[in-house]
Amino acid sequence: MTYIDQLKAYYERVTEECVSGLSLDCVIFGFHDTRLKVLLLKWKDTNEWSLPGGFIYKTESVDTAAGRVLRERTGLDQLFLQQFHLFGDAVRYDTDDTWQRLKMPMKYGVNWPDRTISMGYYALVDYTKVTPAVDFMSDECCWWDVADLPSLLYDHRHIIDVALKTLRLQLNWQPIGLNLMPEKFTIPELQRLYEAVLDRSLDARNFHKKITGLNILTRLDERRTGGAHKSPYLYQFDEVNYQKALINGSLNFV
Amino acid sequence: MTYIDQLKAYYERVTEECVSGLSLDCVIFGFHDTRLKVLLLKWKDTNEWSLPGGFIYKTESVDTAAGRVLRERTGLDQLFLQQFHLFGDAVRYDTDDTWQRLKMPMKYGVNWPDRTISMGYYALVDYTKVTPAVDFMSDECCWWDVADLPSLLYDHRHIIDVALKTLRLQLNWQPIGLNLMPEKFTIPELQRLYEAVLDRSLDARNFHKKITGLNILTRLDERRTGGAHKSPYLYQFDEVNYQKALINGSLNFV
Repeated sequence: MTYIDQLKAYYERVTEECVSGLSLDCVIFGFHDTRLKVLLLKWKDTNEWSLPGGFIYKTESVDTAAGRVLRERTGLDQLFLQQFHLFGDAVRYDTDDTWQRLKMPMKYGVNWPDRTISMGYYALVDYTKVTPAVDFMSDECCWWDVADLPSLLYDHRHIIDVALKTLRLQLNWQPIGLNLMPEKFTIPELQRLYEAVLDRSLDARNFHKKITGLNILTRLDERRTGGAHKSPYLYQFDEVNYQKALINGSLNFV
Repeated sequence: MTYIDQLKAYYERVTEECVSGLSLDCVIFGFHDTRLKVLLLKWKDTNEWSLPGGFIYKTESVDTAAGRVLRERTGLDQLFLQQFHLFGDAVRYDTDDTWQRLKMPMKYGVNWPDRTISMGYYALVDYTKVTPAVDFMSDECCWWDVADLPSLLYDHRHIIDVALKTLRLQLNWQPIGLNLMPEKFTIPELQRLYEAVLDRSLDARNFHKKITGLNILTRLDERRTGGAHKSPYLYQFDEVNYQKALINGSLNFV
């Protein structure tokens, strides 16, 4: 099957088997090397990137569909996955411009809706456990630093911005650190995550004092070795106390 | 036009002019007489109630449609209105049971979708400024105490429960008090609002101490008169400090 045939077959199947006019887009966040990352797909034969996404089967719940998309792109089954915004503007993006950038070799079928509304989900994953996987419309699937994003298709730049704003607002009551950090980490590494989400620097002494005072971390008998001159202790989250702190709203960094 | 003709004309218009398969439901919260209230419609010739809701015109943004529905039911233009959840289960409620309870005198047209996904919005309004208005499918539009709800159609009981849970989670970072309280209020009245949202009692001394310590209230030179033996001072929100407290997460009541 040629690529065009594949595309045609795909859009025909979507038209027939999926809910019409509603899609979903997933902003998958990871944290690596002190940077907040997002998983993107490169559209076939272009230099344009987009969020992983998809459609909802007629007999499938929207949340289930989001879990399926994430599983397909990351290989992960148990994900922290949240609805965050319905993107429902009458005109979400410039269709002609997008079509050109996609280099789309075909037109949608006649039953394709004029307008697609998209449900935005965000996911928090442990970067080290993800195996990014392309779909047939993509050349690449890889992580990008949120502070340094490539050219994005559709309104996906806007969707990422809204997802980031949501993370910031929810930092005090969703288990953001717990889901993004690897199992063991140093306090400066955790500080980098907070700084990446908040998009500003925090004072190291204050952060250390605040975070250790919350009783949500367990210090291990191991240290991070291999650094220049320090070998700081490794920590783990105490999940029970972490959940309590979230409920109490005490995880809050001004 | 008979009621059946009206219904048929309405559903034909929706099929032709609106986005297919997506509706919206609005949980409109008010606060009165120390009780948290929600605005409901009584379905014509039944004792069944439902949330105000509607559909999205093909050229209208989903958020604009929600504002329109709210304006039609409350007479208010400037509303604190938030998306909170997409209700996208494959089967949201028992269709046969709902149809019977609706006493629907007609069938939907052939182009009516098998499944409707609904975007949930919540609104916070000043109870005293609302003029509830029925639509043609309703006998009544009035406030109900959230602690004492009538028989609700569709999955609207579930939608209200999720909206309440959202209010609880957002109490620390959305201007809930500002939007629900009348312009002037006593501290015990504000405490009742927090208690209604949190669904538990708070200690009066602690509440007074905490809320006055936050610097978000301005005490007026007026007192509430007419009560049994006390005449407590009236307060107003200091909007600038209130917004700051929300950003800092200091409005948090454990």
